[in-house]
Amino acid sequence: MSALPTPRILLGPGPSSVTPRVLEALGRAPIGYLDPELFTILGDLRSNLRTVYGTKNDFTFPLTGTGMAGMESCLVNLVEAGDKVLIGVNGFFGLRMVEICRRLNADVTVINGEWGRILEPEAFAAELDKLGSVKLVACVHAETSTGVATPLAAIAELAHAHGALFLADMVTSLGGIPVEIDNWGVDVAYSGTQKCVGAPPGLSPLTISERAWEVATTRKTAVPNWYLDWKLLRAYYDAPHAYHHTVPVNLLFALQEALTEMMEEGLEARYARHRDVSAYLMEGLDKMGIRLFSQEGYRLPNLNAIHVPEGVTDEVAVRKRLLEEFGLEIGGGLGDLKGKIWRIGTMGASATRRNVALLVAALNEIL
Amino acid sequence: MSALPTPRILLGPGPSSVTPRVLEALGRAPIGYLDPELFTILGDLRSNLRTVYGTKNDFTFPLTGTGMAGMESCLVNLVEAGDKVLIGVNGFFGLRMVEICRRLNADVTVINGEWGRILEPEAFAAELDKLGSVKLVACVHAETSTGVATPLAAIAELAHAHGALFLADMVTSLGGIPVEIDNWGVDVAYSGTQKCVGAPPGLSPLTISERAWEVATTRKTAVPNWYLDWKLLRAYYDAPHAYHHTVPVNLLFALQEALTEMMEEGLEARYARHRDVSAYLMEGLDKMGIRLFSQEGYRLPNLNAIHVPEGVTDEVAVRKRLLEEFGLEIGGGLGDLKGKIWRIGTMGASATRRNVALLVAALNEIL
Repeated sequence: MSALPTPRILLGPGPSSVTPRVLEALGRAPIGYLDPELFTILGDLRSNLRTVYGTKNDFTFPLTGTGMAGMESCLVNLVEAGDKVLIGVNGFFGLRMVEICRRLNADVTVINGEWGRILEPEAFAAELDKLGSVKLVACVHAETSTGVATPLAAIAELAHAHGALFLADMVTSLGGIPVEIDNWGVDVAYSGTQKCVGAPPGLSPLTISERAWEVATTRKTAVPNWYLDWKLLRAYYDAPHAYHHTVPVNLLFALQEALTEMMEEGLEARYARHRDVSAYLMEGLDKMGIRLFSQEGYRLPNLNAIHVPEGVTDEVAVRKRLLEEFGLEIGGGLGDLKGKIWRIGTMGASATRRNVALLVAALNEIL
Repeated sequence: MSALPTPRILLGPGPSSVTPRVLEALGRAPIGYLDPELFTILGDLRSNLRTVYGTKNDFTFPLTGTGMAGMESCLVNLVEAGDKVLIGVNGFFGLRMVEICRRLNADVTVINGEWGRILEPEAFAAELDKLGSVKLVACVHAETSTGVATPLAAIAELAHAHGALFLADMVTSLGGIPVEIDNWGVDVAYSGTQKCVGAPPGLSPLTISERAWEVATTRKTAVPNWYLDWKLLRAYYDAPHAYHHTVPVNLLFALQEALTEMMEEGLEARYARHRDVSAYLMEGLDKMGIRLFSQEGYRLPNLNAIHVPEGVTDEVAVRKRLLEEFGLEIGGGLGDLKGKIWRIGTMGASATRRNVALLVAALNEIL
């Protein structure tokens, strides 16, 4: 038998820890990709995904792949070469949207927001007025790289007023803070399972409105990505279920269980738990004089970005000690923020006061 | 808790059943995607993948995605718009290669082989002489849709003589029949984990020669697929491990365990087991007068394609009874073979005499 991994408490930017009950579901014996019982499981799972997304979108499903596959899937289905796209960037993942659109030879306009602050609707309004018609407006809801949540409704409204679809990255928000696809007017969104949803990594919950479906399925050219083509995927996920690829059935078992657990906890109680644990963490960090990185009033309770404490000359060494001596994982900064901030995830099953108490104690000892 | 799936014996075209020990590994608590222990696991796993592939290729790794993601990954990294590609098609999965290449606007030439028979080197020689220089020659090693294994060495040699790379689909062969990447001259290959490798679905083991790497990394245009871009992926899998996406760590645990199990069994013993179980199945089917579909001398011992028995008017109903009354899954035909053949997988942990005895008994009862 291979060596057992050392137990970790995952307080980084994901994956988060998952409950024993989700691990049990993950380890169930697989069934076939056309087994009628799998479609019962998928039906249950998709229904719960609609609930947590706050949407009636029929085509809401777990894409095979991580959140980044979700991002690529949305862009490659909606954007053709030459299409005008407007992307708000206030962190690492916004940049990735831009990179993917450029590879698709789209005509990309970028709003460069400050990392650590929200994107302002006024910036979108100004660019949209300049651009006239745009096919797609996109941004990240909860930037995993900075710990900030941008309010989306006003941006979605502006996009629609200019005839554009509005796409949001909800990888870090889904299951951790309220998400209201339909009320906010979000046309398409993708997420991941390994952050606040409480399942292991490997699936990307997508929700696609009929409006976005129409745009994707009336495009001029074939989608240059067979594996992520929505038409082929929908033909599998919806009856009569035509074979596309062998879905990762064990990950689906685990996601179903994680969503069942989420519904039992209740969404409001879950969001309250994330807020409570984050506040408890803030108390502990405040006593140590550690400063928050993210814009006040918009900081995520599930992804706590903080400045590397003054006096720490080797932040990597501190994180290494946390991992080796306490089994605690926290995240470093991405891109320009590398070496400057730490990212403490309190997401899903990782969001407990016990985990935070241990982290604060460990930091106190090391610093 | 969600309802437990009914236990199944998976004798279809995949996923196959996995052992309790692999399921135990799958259900271990996740660790982070940059955890040093994960890279130890990946090192072990990648080394064993090289052994089963019969290669020294350094860039051999488990792609996040199923075998179809592996196919797309190879084609999208190697093929640019306008590139000449020659594809041998003798089944459903060869057709999919053609479809993906067309979406990439490649200049595709197709060799239409008969479904159920191998691809002959002479057909490749004739087309290559006509085409002159070609960038890529590709075909499927073990066609999952027909149960036939095409010998690859002669085709690879022809490809090289015309300056082309040779790509092979090894989704169904890897771990079930001998695979010799280096000896046969295969430049690139992809597989899946859920057939003969003995792990759950969701990963695609890839092996990429330095020659193919050179072609992929000196192409003129950016790879129009960020998620499957080899350069970005290699920067994560090789040190110093730059973040690309959150790898599905639980699937990696399971794959490591499945490969450890495979090495303990021994490759020769494993191939012998697949041959033995298939011969035992053939005995049982022969007594029932059921005829083989695949070309004699080249039929796969792990994917047994047979004609739907004469007198069966509703083959779907028979498979439904097998599933509902006996918990046995076998596969139907794909594409033009729908309704005409059955595909019985005896792969990985599913390849046992006990499973076959039950299937033959069940078929005897139903027919």
